[in-house]
Amino acid sequence: MNRTSPAGTPSADTFHVYDTTLRDGAQREGISYSVSDKLAVARTLDSLGVGFIEGGWPGALPKDTEFFQRAADGELELRHSVLTAFGATRRPGVSVREDAQVAALLDSRAPVVTLVAKSDRRHIERALRTEVEENCAMVADTVRHLVEHGRRVFLDAEHFFDGYAHDSDTALRVLEAAVHAGADLVCLCDTNGGQLPTGLAHTVEEVVERTGFRVGIHCQDDTGCAVANTLAAVQAGATHVQCTANGYGERAGNADLFAVIGNLETKLDIPVLPEGNLGELSRVSHALAEVANLAPDTHQAYVGTSTFAHKAGLHASAIKVDPELYNHIEPERVGNGMRVLVTEMAGRASLELKAAELGLDLSGSPEAVTGAVQRVKELEAHGWSFEGADASLELLLRRELALAEQRARGTEDGVAPRDSFGAPFELESYRVSLDHRPDGQVVSEVTVKLHVRGERVIATAEGNGPVNALDAALRTALVPRLPWLDEVELVDYKVRILTDTSGTDAVTRVLVESRDEHREWTTVGVHGNIVEASWYALRDAFAHKAIRRSEVAEASLPKGG
Amino acid sequence: MNRTSPAGTPSADTFHVYDTTLRDGAQREGISYSVSDKLAVARTLDSLGVGFIEGGWPGALPKDTEFFQRAADGELELRHSVLTAFGATRRPGVSVREDAQVAALLDSRAPVVTLVAKSDRRHIERALRTEVEENCAMVADTVRHLVEHGRRVFLDAEHFFDGYAHDSDTALRVLEAAVHAGADLVCLCDTNGGQLPTGLAHTVEEVVERTGFRVGIHCQDDTGCAVANTLAAVQAGATHVQCTANGYGERAGNADLFAVIGNLETKLDIPVLPEGNLGELSRVSHALAEVANLAPDTHQAYVGTSTFAHKAGLHASAIKVDPELYNHIEPERVGNGMRVLVTEMAGRASLELKAAELGLDLSGSPEAVTGAVQRVKELEAHGWSFEGADASLELLLRRELALAEQRARGTEDGVAPRDSFGAPFELESYRVSLDHRPDGQVVSEVTVKLHVRGERVIATAEGNGPVNALDAALRTALVPRLPWLDEVELVDYKVRILTDTSGTDAVTRVLVESRDEHREWTTVGVHGNIVEASWYALRDAFAHKAIRRSEVAEASLPKGG
Repeated sequence: MNRTSPAGTPSADTFHVYDTTLRDGAQREGISYSVSDKLAVARTLDSLGVGFIEGGWPGALPKDTEFFQRAADGELELRHSVLTAFGATRRPGVSVREDAQVAALLDSRAPVVTLVAKSDRRHIERALRTEVEENCAMVADTVRHLVEHGRRVFLDAEHFFDGYAHDSDTALRVLEAAVHAGADLVCLCDTNGGQLPTGLAHTVEEVVERTGFRVGIHCQDDTGCAVANTLAAVQAGATHVQCTANGYGERAGNADLFAVIGNLETKLDIPVLPEGNLGELSRVSHALAEVANLAPDTHQAYVGTSTFAHKAGLHASAIKVDPELYNHIEPERVGNGMRVLVTEMAGRASLELKAAELGLDLSGSPEAVTGAVQRVKELEAHGWSFEGADASLELLLRRELALAEQRARGTEDGVAPRDSFGAPFELESYRVSLDHRPDGQVVSEVTVKLHVRGERVIATAEGNGPVNALDAALRTALVPRLPWLDEVELVDYKVRILTDTSGTDAVTRVLVESRDEHREWTTVGVHGNIVEASWYALRDAFAHKAIRRSEVAEASLPKGG
Repeated sequence: MNRTSPAGTPSADTFHVYDTTLRDGAQREGISYSVSDKLAVARTLDSLGVGFIEGGWPGALPKDTEFFQRAADGELELRHSVLTAFGATRRPGVSVREDAQVAALLDSRAPVVTLVAKSDRRHIERALRTEVEENCAMVADTVRHLVEHGRRVFLDAEHFFDGYAHDSDTALRVLEAAVHAGADLVCLCDTNGGQLPTGLAHTVEEVVERTGFRVGIHCQDDTGCAVANTLAAVQAGATHVQCTANGYGERAGNADLFAVIGNLETKLDIPVLPEGNLGELSRVSHALAEVANLAPDTHQAYVGTSTFAHKAGLHASAIKVDPELYNHIEPERVGNGMRVLVTEMAGRASLELKAAELGLDLSGSPEAVTGAVQRVKELEAHGWSFEGADASLELLLRRELALAEQRARGTEDGVAPRDSFGAPFELESYRVSLDHRPDGQVVSEVTVKLHVRGERVIATAEGNGPVNALDAALRTALVPRLPWLDEVELVDYKVRILTDTSGTDAVTRVLVESRDEHREWTTVGVHGNIVEASWYALRDAFAHKAIRRSEVAEASLPKGG
């Protein structure tokens, strides 16, 4: 946790991609990250390889304080990115040493601190109710204090563009206060999002010329130009861009990290991700939508599932001749795929890659790949999605491999149906009873009837809710017979209602995240009934544990045996 | 239908806003307009006052042919806009008089025709399989033929930017062929959407300088810059912009009409709508989403319902002092409104603003504000969130007002507890039975026991899932006694599992969106049990209907009575 420059990024410290999904993104209406969600977001962004990850505002929000504590205590191992804390300068008229919020920034143990400061005179006077002089002292004192304590400091100059237009001297004085006190860079923020590229670029250019400072850019999307504004600033001399995953943010949102990275890498030839990681762009975008519990934007630049889909029949045939004529880039560069050319091609390739990632070698079994592509298509048409559920996908792939092997051997030795592949038990039935009693008490009870190793087992358990009770009943039935199932802990449970699946009734998609001592894994279930969808995901969670466990057992056998 | 210049627009023919939702927008995956839909879209766009409405491609698509026929036969009376037909030039090696597709353009009776032509040499040779010479003759012949038949002609130069970069002479020859044959303007199309504003503006400027032609711009959003590209082109000399409602279009979509108009009017001071119509922007955007059967984008620039919503508590108090400090424009200018999201950081200021927005005056009742702030904080600590559930918040505020009034009167006349405030019934109990049977069938059944106007009612119903069955059972019990409840339709249902709410077990938050003939409203419920959480949200949905209904009834009483 002591690195202060991003490692592994091609431009290292010369160009920064700075993500603020965990602070600005969390301001989007409807997003509410738990601390575990925040850790998952940071790990995913690190796997993409952004330079800096702003984790939140320690000291101001209890969840953010806890996030930094858990990160520093070892729950967040970053390979590429540097963790950053966001905070304010000391309050007016208070010594920086006595400001609790500044102390919380140091306590967060983040190696980089991004301080927000007002740079519009009207905001200083009307909202902060202080003088420009004191505002600059607040900036300088806080920067110096943090630098003296070994922190690298960035300054976010709030409402910079309006402030500069209204009174450029004041705006520049704030920047100077920061840089002279030791800040590494000043990030110019279009806080109310009202800028257009031409004017914004002009201001950035002028500030770079007048100050010689290292300049960053932070854009909101209120004119629908946040991505373009960010790129215009880079072309005008900014070397640090602040963005959020999928543009999540307050009001109309922020500059979308993925569109900015896609444009920087493929249009402006500025490499900002570790070699080979651009192909992760689409996966990471969708995974972060999943954690935010929002549907991915199917039409999002670069990463949307419709973004390289061609509907016009005219195009389709020409594309077959020469796809370059109709796509502005090869979709595979950003991990996306074109959808007119029988997606099977893109589908095969990505499934093989995915299988390799999961430790399965499909290269010798084209038949298994064909089967899996077909299966995934069928299921996706019914609302399934495997993007966030690797463990369920792995079970599906393993079953297709087993079927292909069986066919190769010409035998029919009974590969389990998809519904129960890998599960060390079979369901006969379950029954949920849920009562809201006249005294207001609510009780849930589930009875399961299972077959485990030839034995029929009946068990009943109570729970908070129907799914919790189902999980408890399964464990009551199974753990005495399969004690290792007790190692499986359910850490998260997400539900999404899908309303437009092929015009039929709404279906429910459930994701279950499980953990044991060694790893975490996610499974998925889809059904019109939420309890049944949850049952699928729970069953896969246990099945995946069973399969990995038997592999470990095999691997630890003496080789000669 | 003989006008060829838009009437009533402030700039008349000097600057064109040209809508292509009915052609380009219809290419979006998931949109499928009927002919009536198309007529409704055209009427709505005309009510906003765009200059030109492209109705589709007569002769190529039967629906489009029918649309133009019905429009010309009197089903479409346009006050502001001019109807435009889209089509291709004559085929290679065929006389324009014998080209059926060109004849269909005349048959459409549209006073303006927009012809698409290839301007990238590679497309002419590889996709069209003809020579540049013949391509230019196709353009010239077709334009001349249409002009001779009294049509005004615009030329859409497909793939212009890539074509110009690859071979600018060919690209310019195509433009010249059109203008010399009588076309009014040439619209430069970024067909594959790969441009960024700086490069695009440079090309537009150069083309204007080299040709002196009137130039238009048509942008796709594959880099996330379609709006910015459109504006950059205008700043570089384009005086005709082609856009689609809400950016609907193939792949990543087109330049969003509403963001472009918002920016032109409020940022570049180019008035493009009839006086007073800018305030219709949000309404028209939402109405067109409705016709397309797509959920409006809540975070869309200018028109999204979240686009002027402020979440940070810090902002809310400053906004009360001076809203201009935090909004880039007055939201009312585009028919939008500022909303304050009531969250854990909220204080008195945001609640008062919110209450005013909901039509409740808390200014005379500081006690009610204190009570409400405390209530919201308590509930949020248990996982409730009111930022997406105005109707539940309104019930909470109304109850605090009622309590404050009661205290002021010194009486104790029994304000209903928060749990049932406003609901025209009381729950005694409910029971859910859910079976996964040995044959794999899954069935849900709910029995409710309620008290309605002193009567005890028992009802049972089945459903897809437990919540669906609960809703059905409530309606079975209530509708015969409160027939107006039948007007309430549940339109959406969202579930979020909250794992780290104050370290206790996971709780479930449910949002229910309801609709009647007049409005939509959202309610929230939180509980460890998903069915109980859903019950809270359903009860609030019905309670809110009851309250608004009785207000309407009171308002319609004779004043003297």
